[in-house]
Amino acid sequence: MRQLTLSKVFTLIESGPVVLVTTHDEQKGNIMTISWTMVMDFTPVFAIITGEWNHSFTALQKNRECVIAIPTVDMLDKVVGIGTCSGKDTDKFAKFELTPVQGKVVRSPLIKECLANIECKVIDIIKKYNIVVLEAVAACIDTERKEKRTVHAVGDGTFIVDGRKIDRRAMMASKLPPGV
Amino acid sequence: MRQLTLSKVFTLIESGPVVLVTTHDEQKGNIMTISWTMVMDFTPVFAIITGEWNHSFTALQKNRECVIAIPTVDMLDKVVGIGTCSGKDTDKFAKFELTPVQGKVVRSPLIKECLANIECKVIDIIKKYNIVVLEAVAACIDTERKEKRTVHAVGDGTFIVDGRKIDRRAMMASKLPPGV
Repeated sequence: MRQLTLSKVFTLIESGPVVLVTTHDEQKGNIMTISWTMVMDFTPVFAIITGEWNHSFTALQKNRECVIAIPTVDMLDKVVGIGTCSGKDTDKFAKFELTPVQGKVVRSPLIKECLANIECKVIDIIKKYNIVVLEAVAACIDTERKEKRTVHAVGDGTFIVDGRKIDRRAMMASKLPPGV
Repeated sequence: MRQLTLSKVFTLIESGPVVLVTTHDEQKGNIMTISWTMVMDFTPVFAIITGEWNHSFTALQKNRECVIAIPTVDMLDKVVGIGTCSGKDTDKFAKFELTPVQGKVVRSPLIKECLANIECKVIDIIKKYNIVVLEAVAACIDTERKEKRTVHAVGDGTFIVDGRKIDRRAMMASKLPPGV
């Protein structure tokens, strides 16, 4: 895992991959699957939608931190499995054979098997809309990994895998933030 | 263009495609390219990030409505072009040869060439974060169209095209909302 400059972190979220969000309570780490996410700034600040219906929300609200881990297509069945059971009665790291790794800043665990991990602090919760505003404080990416394709939830039980990449850097030069 | 049930509209946004957002002022329609979007509910309610830096924001704020149009990969250069010039001095429908079509509810134009168009009302603006909360009031999809692949902005000037689709409907049955 290579450390990633904070100015580049939004590029992990902007394309809209389904993500895993880890939290911890006093006993253990927990994981939820989230596809309602949004980049909010280049700073980097993100929004996710979650609330009481997710067991992780209690820990997220109490400890005001989490890790956003980016899974790849080879992990899809784990991602769906994590999203369809609850941390209330399941140790998801054990059940889905994922390895918790200590991060640099937050106590919530990184997921070793993921392509990238973003350590985040909760900077606000907009209760009216269940929007949790996160600020990344550290991030790392597995550059050795062969499978780099992320997966996009459609919301109807189907998922779209990353296809080819198109480069429009030259055309967009005037709009790109520095350091990206 | 076939009308799309409102309960299915979030599936157009959840996978994270770059979108075109149209508005209108007294003179003409305008278009902006947005990739910071998020599904907020199944109702369907969406968030987009925009603000004073976009010329369209004035009209969006004043008329409290817009259209989210979903372009496909064959339209990428138009999408990037729209995102790198301003409605302040450009008629984007004319410049990018796009056809404005009257919607069913809002005055902002649909874009005929897009895969889908979602007519939206602005239901809130969270000024602290430049979050505009939208509610879809009508939507239509071009089912005749051959090219259906959307494009995901990475944020660094590159774009990921939709690849293959994976079906996990059976595994996710317990989590899917009715009517999807």
